[in-house]
Order: sequence, then C-alpha cells, then structure tokens
Amino acid sequence: MELAKYIDHTFLGASGCHDAVERLCREAAEHGFCAVCVNPAEVARAKNFLDGSSVKVCTVIGFPLGQNTFAVKKFEALDAIANGADELDFVINIRLLRFDPEACEKELEGLSLSSRAAKPSVVLKLIIECCYLTDDEKVLACRMAQRAGFDFVKTSTGFGSGGATAEDVKLMRETVGPVMGVKAAGGIRTREDAEKMIASGASRLGCSASLEIIPS
Amino acid sequence: MELAKYIDHTFLGASGCHDAVERLCREAAEHGFCAVCVNPAEVARAKNFLDGSSVKVCTVIGFPLGQNTFAVKKFEALDAIANGADELDFVINIRLLRFDPEACEKELEGLSLSSRAAKPSVVLKLIIECCYLTDDEKVLACRMAQRAGFDFVKTSTGFGSGGATAEDVKLMRETVGPVMGVKAAGGIRTREDAEKMIASGASRLGCSASLEIIPS
Repeated sequence: MELAKYIDHTFLGASGCHDAVERLCREAAEHGFCAVCVNPAEVARAKNFLDGSSVKVCTVIGFPLGQNTFAVKKFEALDAIANGADELDFVINIRLLRFDPEACEKELEGLSLSSRAAKPSVVLKLIIECCYLTDDEKVLACRMAQRAGFDFVKTSTGFGSGGATAEDVKLMRETVGPVMGVKAAGGIRTREDAEKMIASGASRLGCSASLEIIPS
Repeated sequence: MELAKYIDHTFLGASGCHDAVERLCREAAEHGFCAVCVNPAEVARAKNFLDGSSVKVCTVIGFPLGQNTFAVKKFEALDAIANGADELDFVINIRLLRFDPEACEKELEGLSLSSRAAKPSVVLKLIIECCYLTDDEKVLACRMAQRAGFDFVKTSTGFGSGGATAEDVKLMRETVGPVMGVKAAGGIRTREDAEKMIASGASRLGCSASLEIIPS
C-alpha cells in the first residue's frame, strides 16, 4: 500500500512560520502526496508553488465551525475555485442538520451545484465533525452528502473536541457504500493510526504529521 | 459599575441545543447586556428575536482563524449587515500581519470602508488573537486597526490557545489611547475576571458565562 497517495498534507493554522505553505507544497511534491490542504487565503500561493506538479490544492470552506450563511459558503467556494483550488472541504452546519434537516440538505445541494458549475472537475468533501454528532446524525449527514453529489465525507475538522476514530470511519464507509470517498482527519499522527483508518474504510487521510507517517 | 452594559453575551458554538440563540437573546434583553454575539448563520434569527429591544446583534467575520481571502471577509461582512448585524468582530489574518504588514493594513482599510459604506453606524472590532502574537505584533495590530477606523480592538477569539489576559488588555489600552474601545474576550468566567479586565482598560467584555458574572 502506497500511503503517500492517500494523504492530504495539511496546514490550517492561524499562525505558523513564514514558509509553512511553501514547505508543505515542496514536501507534497517530493513525496507524492495526493494534495495539500491549506486555508483559503493561501490557495493562490499554494497553486503557484505547485504549478506543473500533480499535487492537488485542497482548501476548506466555512471552516472550522460551519456556522456561516449559505451565501457566504457559496461565495467562498467560488472564490477558492477562482484562486485555483482543485478540492473543497466544506464544514456542515450542524445546527441546521439537527434542527432543520431539510434546509441543511438544500444548502448542500446548492453548494455542490454551484461549485461544479464553476469547475466540473472539482472534488467536494463534506466535513461532518463526528465529535459533536450521534451515530444517527452521522448517518443522516453522510446520506445527505451522497444525495447532494459530494465525492467524500470527512470525519473531522481537527479543531473540534475530537478527531478521526476507526469506529466513525467504519460507520461512514458502511453508510456510503464502496464507491464514495471517506476522508479521515484529525489526530492521525503515526503510521499505525493511518493504517488503522485505511483498514476501517478510509480512502483519504488528512494529516499534518505526514512525514512521520510515510515510510522513510 | 453596571457590569451588564459591558457584556457581549456570546454563543459561537458549532453545535449546542436547539434554542441556544433564542435563550441568549432573551437573557440579553432581560439583563440589559450590550449585545448578543452569534455566528453569521444566526444573525437574522437573533435580529428577529431582538426586534424592539435595545440589545445589539454582533457577529464574527472570518472566524476563528482569520485565514480567509479579503474578498470573502468583505462579502461575509456585507452579508451580515444585510441580515441585520449591528456590530462586526473581524479576525485579523496573522500570517499577513506578520509577513506582509502592508497587505494586512490594506485589507483592514478595505473591510472598514466597505462595511461603513453599507451601514454607517456599524461598530467594527478587530480580533488580534493575542495568544499567537509578540507584544510588538500586538501593538502593530492595534495601530493598524486604529488607522483603518475600527472602533475596537479585541483580545481573542476564544478558540485559540489562550484567552484574554489583564496584561494584554493593559498593553492594548496604552497603545490605542483612551477613546478607542478595547474588548476582552476568551475565558472570562467570573465577576472577578470581568472586573479585572475593566480595571485593566477593557470597555467591552465577550462572555458566554454572562449570567454568572452579573450581580444577581
């Protein structure tokens, strides 16, 4: 199993050193990671660094709380695509999922449609932030993402009260079936963690400590 | 000292119970808090609940990381104003402050100008997220906010590695002088905390535990 191909090499800090994004991109190209995942303000810079490489640029939308309006999430997605993003990891609005599921599903459909209209090849992931959800809510969120045409469901932002667990990855994989993607993210720090997530059904991993995970 | 008038009664969680915002608004009206502070997706709802009261609706922009593009922060501010927001707490882009201060200041000017063009009476606060900054950077961020026409500087998002400290409030007050507002937020949980912040120069407090702070 070539672990590197599973990895979205991730830097989403508010602070950090000057060349954090440049280094992330260099490492991703050198080790053949699937993508870099950076904050929206760094998308154009990352795209520029990675020009000519096969590494994709992934960013996050409505991150990490998901408590933005639909209009803002849609605008942020289109802005990120215009800046060169290949993949978009949206954060679900948990309060909407829980208290107005119909509005939540409509939001997801709108985000999916408008993003694909702007860039048909864009890869869409929905972060459902498992740490705050019951199992029933996780299943509901996965089904909504699938119906709305998302490519992946993703366990966690890494900024919530908990990260990826093997149990959640298993439940998400069982719910969405074998074709849709499942991205495990949050707290994956060792090769053992990574292999456990893949064995549980993950097809993508979001990691900051990617260099410690891949075989040297 | 009437503590209630200092308080932005705050709920910014990604999850929480069904009536969290309704209850926040009811408590704010009942106790005469200055404002409620809610996520952007809840602004219209809060405005509706507070119709006819003197409690302001405050929301957060680019929250909590500040790592959104200028275009998205501007759009989110105008969207929040259209939804009824009276006060906007923007998160500074720390990486820009640190590595491209000129661009950071230009961003702040643009946000201030476009928000006031949409609503002249809007109150603008800049969250500088002190926990990640050196004292020199805190001073620089305060001066930029002041030059860009913000009404307040604010210590913290409450989602970073640290909250408000008396030392930071003092430094910010010394930097901006007696007229500009200083909002202390993050970890203010008791009346003692609140009084310490005010004694250090805070003119506004962001609190979730507001009911424990005010005299009963």
